[in-house]
Amino acid sequence: MRILGIDPGSRATGYGLIVKEGNRLIHVDNGVIRPPEKATLPERLHTIFLGLGEIISEYSPQYAAVEQVFVARNPQSALKLGQARGAAILAATQAGLPVGEYSAMQVKSAVVGYGRAAKGQVQQMVKALLKLPEIAQEDASDALAVAICHAHSSNLNAKLAGAGGRNR
Amino acid sequence: MRILGIDPGSRATGYGLIVKEGNRLIHVDNGVIRPPEKATLPERLHTIFLGLGEIISEYSPQYAAVEQVFVARNPQSALKLGQARGAAILAATQAGLPVGEYSAMQVKSAVVGYGRAAKGQVQQMVKALLKLPEIAQEDASDALAVAICHAHSSNLNAKLAGAGGRNR
Repeated sequence: MRILGIDPGSRATGYGLIVKEGNRLIHVDNGVIRPPEKATLPERLHTIFLGLGEIISEYSPQYAAVEQVFVARNPQSALKLGQARGAAILAATQAGLPVGEYSAMQVKSAVVGYGRAAKGQVQQMVKALLKLPEIAQEDASDALAVAICHAHSSNLNAKLAGAGGRNR
Repeated sequence: MRILGIDPGSRATGYGLIVKEGNRLIHVDNGVIRPPEKATLPERLHTIFLGLGEIISEYSPQYAAVEQVFVARNPQSALKLGQARGAAILAATQAGLPVGEYSAMQVKSAVVGYGRAAKGQVQQMVKALLKLPEIAQEDASDALAVAICHAHSSNLNAKLAGAGGRNR
């Protein structure tokens, strides 16, 4: 099962690709898409949409996962985040990928085993779980974390589905 | 010059198509794209993106116009609006259309001649300017208004460009 985790943002959109084989998680790639600083809004959204589209073409993930957003600092930053998030989700949807949404608490629980873990702990655990040589860039690490969360939750789904359950 | 005005929203996205011939504005079509009430977020964004894509294919506008958002009620609604707005802008950008953004005050000034006009006045003027048989649905009327604003501002741009200026 190949999973693309996405951490959308107007200035930086992190992505992280992992493969789940049985109970093993294998890191494939991670990175950050950064539209040029002076880009207009349409250009920014285009860069995010095309950038993720290219990654999807290259690695053919079967699932995408993105963090749910409950709190934003203020309406203006929420609007910007929403626009980037819309472009990111559309990139996955246009490629036919189902998109799982997970709360920050679900992501932290899946990665660290504790829903209120600090950001640094999550980054360390992402590095350890995926055997990365070093901690990934912040947005890429967050994207890998939500991909790991999706991998765990599909485990759970398979268990819930009983003996006949397949990995979904 | 064919202009597509868009009024994006998570539950209802209005669109309005007008043609500008010299100083005449001609109404072509307007309507509202409504994702099913129980649609997931990715489905909603997909519906907006594809719906606008179909309208663009059908009418081949050369420009898109959308209202700028400065104020949103709260971060959660700003996030939802942002996601819909991202999908709408991407639909235009993917089709190669430049997207003009106009403030509410610019739209009202262009349509009514007064930047603090009430919503009802704007709807009446949209009806009158485009010779509509009746006031369009709210979101569609807003979309037509921003299209009219784009038509006016391109007039201004042509004037500013001097004798050699063409309608853009």
